[in-house]
Amino acid sequence: MKCRVCRGPAVIDLPRHNANFCPEHFLAFTRRQVVRAIEDFEMIAPGDRVLVAVSGGKDSLALWDLLLEHGYAADGLHLGLGIGDYSDQSTRCARAFADDRGATLLEIDLRADRGFDVPTAAAATGRPPCSACGLSKRHLFDEAARDGGYDVVATGHNLDDEAAVLFGNTLTWNTEYLGRQVPALPARHGFARKVKPLVRLTERETAAWCVLRRIDYQVEECPLAAGNRHLGYKEVLNTLEARSPGTKAAFYLGFLDRAVARFRSDIASDSDGGLQTCNRCGSATTNETCAFCSVVERARAHQPVPVSAPRRRR
Amino acid sequence: MKCRVCRGPAVIDLPRHNANFCPEHFLAFTRRQVVRAIEDFEMIAPGDRVLVAVSGGKDSLALWDLLLEHGYAADGLHLGLGIGDYSDQSTRCARAFADDRGATLLEIDLRADRGFDVPTAAAATGRPPCSACGLSKRHLFDEAARDGGYDVVATGHNLDDEAAVLFGNTLTWNTEYLGRQVPALPARHGFARKVKPLVRLTERETAAWCVLRRIDYQVEECPLAAGNRHLGYKEVLNTLEARSPGTKAAFYLGFLDRAVARFRSDIASDSDGGLQTCNRCGSATTNETCAFCSVVERARAHQPVPVSAPRRRR
Repeated sequence: MKCRVCRGPAVIDLPRHNANFCPEHFLAFTRRQVVRAIEDFEMIAPGDRVLVAVSGGKDSLALWDLLLEHGYAADGLHLGLGIGDYSDQSTRCARAFADDRGATLLEIDLRADRGFDVPTAAAATGRPPCSACGLSKRHLFDEAARDGGYDVVATGHNLDDEAAVLFGNTLTWNTEYLGRQVPALPARHGFARKVKPLVRLTERETAAWCVLRRIDYQVEECPLAAGNRHLGYKEVLNTLEARSPGTKAAFYLGFLDRAVARFRSDIASDSDGGLQTCNRCGSATTNETCAFCSVVERARAHQPVPVSAPRRRR
Repeated sequence: MKCRVCRGPAVIDLPRHNANFCPEHFLAFTRRQVVRAIEDFEMIAPGDRVLVAVSGGKDSLALWDLLLEHGYAADGLHLGLGIGDYSDQSTRCARAFADDRGATLLEIDLRADRGFDVPTAAAATGRPPCSACGLSKRHLFDEAARDGGYDVVATGHNLDDEAAVLFGNTLTWNTEYLGRQVPALPARHGFARKVKPLVRLTERETAAWCVLRRIDYQVEECPLAAGNRHLGYKEVLNTLEARSPGTKAAFYLGFLDRAVARFRSDIASDSDGGLQTCNRCGSATTNETCAFCSVVERARAHQPVPVSAPRRRR
């Protein structure tokens, strides 16, 4: 197996590109995909301060590494979610990376700093854990970006993640979400811009980036995510991909190409969607109290839930 | 398990409708779905002469039965495809139904009447068998409708068939096909109108119709279709359906609801797409010689291919 570029020994094959790469040229390929996503969707402007959502997994650490390598002013923010050993190990990986690069890692521990954790919030509100977790992350990253004066929040969502979301929204013809599923949301209502620079890379590719760059990442999946609907969609897409390599990328990148055109026409003509201000935290919200503050209130009043017996839902 | 309508003993459960039905009310449900499809897409007008494409399988016999029951002037046309025992048994089922109902069944035997068969046409042209077969069917049904003065050609495509096609076109963002995937194509260029009255029924439902109506149908799948891409899409949709009942119908019927609106606006404004006349058979075509005449010419020059060793492709 030889590198498509230099004919040296290849270490990875990418069937969707019908190509094999040596370490050097795989890293170059990866950088090009990230640069292209950033440029296509005007994700980061010169001089922007970037806050990277750092879980400690392969995607977020690869993202942070790539942004630092490109010279962006990128700090990390890691949330301690309170999901037992999984969270502890994730935090260790995030800190080790920051120490190694001499980068700034902000941290918020949900239980110590905010009086709740993800398992308890899910149990207290009856939400699936992934819903309570995503809600908390969005809120706390927005808040930290606002308080810290960051222009952009960058997350490590990859092609597999976005393809699964797109697949779910397509199956239900959720055309409103389909129209909004772009990897860059402009700043508005006091929220920083939100960008996903890894959308052109699969999770296999972000893992390979970490391995080749000797980045130690949390390899376990979150134990609370088992049975999550999106994992089911990922499985189905992987089945299709195995039968016909390139299917997944053609599905998502075909959508993304169309989204670029739409993005360019949309950024000029944006309305505020009738938002008001949360009466607890001051965030923009469609209700009197934002969803995060409502969840936190209920979770704080609830007994902590041990992670050894998480509630699982499909 | 009780019938939703009469509380009598149910014989079938329809998870997507969250309902069970006794034989009488299942048949009534089935009729309503067909009437709704016919009305939504103006498939058959009073006095229309209908030619039903009758393979001898559950879908085509259920369709013919339903149309006759509703009082439509519906004759059948059965093609002898030359696929060994599979074709022989299919022909027996088609004839038995016609005899039982005293209905008119036209027949064309590809080998005896046209000098080729499906396996040979596939081998001679390098096309997958399903491609050579579909092409031949479309051509011969169009021709028979024109020669016999039929207004409409009706085919037994069901919800599973259409959902699989839609799924494939969505995965590749084949937006041109997506836009045209309506279950009724208006008459034009000398072609009769083409309609699919069973698109609101799953294949499990058309099979149940035949069982309850004591219609003997060909239960085998075509041996040449193994590995066909659409069967793969059906499997994937069935996996999703098993995890979350209603997914498949929501996907296809959600599309269909949007297609009804589009259908109404499209039927008025139709262009001819730059067609000319085939120099062999006189059909409308985009080339000098139509695809069917090209395939037949090559197949007739080729040694017949025994079905015991069909060419299989994925």
